Amino acid sequence: MKNLVLGIDVGGTNIKLGIVDDNGRILSRSSIPTKSYNRNRNDLIKAIFAEVRRLLGEAKIAFSKLKGIGIGLPGQIDPDKGQVIFLPNIPGWENVSLCKIFEKEFNVPTLIENDVNMITLGEWRFGSGKGKNDLLCMTLGTGVGGGLILDGQLYRGARFVAGEIGHIPLNEQGPACSCGGYGCLERYVGNRVLLKKIVQIFGDKELTIPAVNKLAQQGNKKALKFFEETATHLGNGLVGVVNLLNPPLIIIGGGVSHNHKFLFPTIRKVIQARAMKVQKEILKIIHAKLGDDAGILGARVLISENLRKRK
Amino acid sequence: MKNLVLGIDVGGTNIKLGIVDDNGRILSRSSIPTKSYNRNRNDLIKAIFAEVRRLLGEAKIAFSKLKGIGIGLPGQIDPDKGQVIFLPNIPGWENVSLCKIFEKEFNVPTLIENDVNMITLGEWRFGSGKGKNDLLCMTLGTGVGGGLILDGQLYRGARFVAGEIGHIPLNEQGPACSCGGYGCLERYVGNRVLLKKIVQIFGDKELTIPAVNKLAQQGNKKALKFFEETATHLGNGLVGVVNLLNPPLIIIGGGVSHNHKFLFPTIRKVIQARAMKVQKEILKIIHAKLGDDAGILGARVLISENLRKRK
Repeated sequence: MKNLVLGIDVGGTNIKLGIVDDNGRILSRSSIPTKSYNRNRNDLIKAIFAEVRRLLGEAKIAFSKLKGIGIGLPGQIDPDKGQVIFLPNIPGWENVSLCKIFEKEFNVPTLIENDVNMITLGEWRFGSGKGKNDLLCMTLGTGVGGGLILDGQLYRGARFVAGEIGHIPLNEQGPACSCGGYGCLERYVGNRVLLKKIVQIFGDKELTIPAVNKLAQQGNKKALKFFEETATHLGNGLVGVVNLLNPPLIIIGGGVSHNHKFLFPTIRKVIQARAMKVQKEILKIIHAKLGDDAGILGARVLISENLRKRK
Repeated sequence: MKNLVLGIDVGGTNIKLGIVDDNGRILSRSSIPTKSYNRNRNDLIKAIFAEVRRLLGEAKIAFSKLKGIGIGLPGQIDPDKGQVIFLPNIPGWENVSLCKIFEKEFNVPTLIENDVNMITLGEWRFGSGKGKNDLLCMTLGTGVGGGLILDGQLYRGARFVAGEIGHIPLNEQGPACSCGGYGCLERYVGNRVLLKKIVQIFGDKELTIPAVNKLAQQGNKKALKFFEETATHLGNGLVGVVNLLNPPLIIIGGGVSHNHKFLFPTIRKVIQARAMKVQKEILKIIHAKLGDDAGILGARVLISENLRKRK
C-alpha cells in the first residue's frame, strides 16, 4: 500500500528530508547543507536525489511505498504548474519545473509549495491548528512569514504569494525594507533588526536573543522592555489582519517565537486594546507545536489532500 | 418558473427594494426611509412587509415567482442561522431571526447578509468583478467597509465580520476610532473626517466633498492636495492587504469614490511604491460599476448561489 510521503523542506541553510506515515509520524529523517550546492542548481538537485535514495535505502522503504513527494521551497512557487518561479535567497532558481524533474527521476507523484505554506499545512493538520477551518500561521525568523487557511483550505492568492504578513506596513512612514517597501513589520521584528537593537540596548555585539531571554528571566528590565517593544510591534501588525480576516486562531512559530512567554502576553494585550470587538472575542494566539518538523509534516498534508491538481 | 429575486438593502437612511431577474436586471424598484421607524424594530419590519407587497402588486409579480428574498443589513449577521446579531446604527436589533420572520410572512426562502458583503457579491457577478476568482471590494463613505471574494467564494471569517478594511491601522500611534481602536484607516479617510479636514483647509463649514472636487477640476492646489493626501492614506492602508492576500483586483465604490479621477492615480502610485513585486504586478484597482444597485443585485447572487445553507 502506498501510504508514505517523502517530505523535503528546502531552506537557505539546510535541506531536511523525512518519511511520514498517514498519522503524521516521521519514520525516518535526514538533513544536508544547502550552501555547498548554492552556486549550482543541478548540483543541488543531484545532492537531494542522492540523499533521497540514501534515506529510503537506510530505512528500507521501497519507492513503490511512496504515495508522493512534497517539497517546500523558500520563494514564489506555482503549485499548479509544479514550477519554482523564483527563490530570493538561493541563486539560479527561476522558472524551474521541479515536479517534472523529480517525477522523471523517481516516478513518484511530486507536488511543491512555498515553505511557509507547507509549515502552515503541517500545523493545521498535525499541530496547533488541528480542527480549525481558518487560521493564520506566522513564522518569526530572519524573515517574518505567514500562511493562511481560509474556509478550510490553504489560501494562496492570485499569484501564489499570499500570506506576506511580514510586509504589512506598521506606519505610513518607516524604515526601508528589503522587499522594496518601507515601514514593514519585518523591519521592526525580523531577526537581524532585533540583533541590531540588542547591540544598541546592551552595547554587546555577542549577545544573542536566547541570552536576552535569560536576562529577561532574571528580571533584567532592559531585556523585558526589549521583548515588550517587539511584542507591541507584532500586536500592532496583527490588529489589521485580525480586523480584516476575523480568524479564530493565530499560530506563531519560528526561532524568535521561543520567547513566547515574554512576547505573547503583550501581543494579546495590544490586540485586545486595538482590534474590533467581535474579532478579538473569538481570537486565540498560540505557539506552534511542530517546530522544525512542520514543513515535512506539511508535505504529508499537501500530498494527502492533493490540494491542487497540477495542470 | 421561480426565477426572480427580491433584494432588500437596509441602510441607515433608506431601505431599497428591487426585483431582479436572472440576468441581473432590476425589473422594479422602490425605497422607503429608515429613520421614521428607527425606534421600533417591529414597525420597521412591518413597513418593509407593506412595501414588499406594494412593490410586487405594482409590478404585477406573484410571490410564487420569487425564488428567494435576499436582505442586506449594516452590521453583524449570522447567515448560517439567518440571524441579525447586531446593527450598530439601527437601534433594537440584537439576535433577531429575520429569515424566519420573513419566511413566515411570505413563505419565500429568505437569506440575509452583511450589506458590504452584499455589495461585494453584486460587483463580483454583475459589476466590476466579473470573472474574477479573488477580489477586494471597498466602500468609501461615512464608514470604510470591505468585502472579500477569495478562491471563488465570499469570505466571511469565523464570526462573519471579515472584510473590515476600514479598521486596518495606518500607524502604531493614531487618533481614536469609533471601533475602540486607534489609527484606523477610517479615521483618516471616513466621510466625517474628510469634512472636518475640509473645514480646516478651506475654513468653510458649508463646503462639501463634491464642491472640493469641482475646485480640484479647476486646478485649485489645496483641493488637489486634499485628494492626494486622502489617496495616500488609502494606498498606505491597501498595501498591507495587497501583500497579505495577493488579490488581482480591488474594486472601490461608495460616495467618496466618485472622486476617483483625483484619488485612484495616487492610490496606484503608493501601492506601486510600497507593495511587493509579484503582488503589485498583477493588481488592478478599478471603480465600482453598480452604484446604489450593487446591494440589490448582490441579493440575486446570494439567492442564486445559495452561498450558505442555513442550518
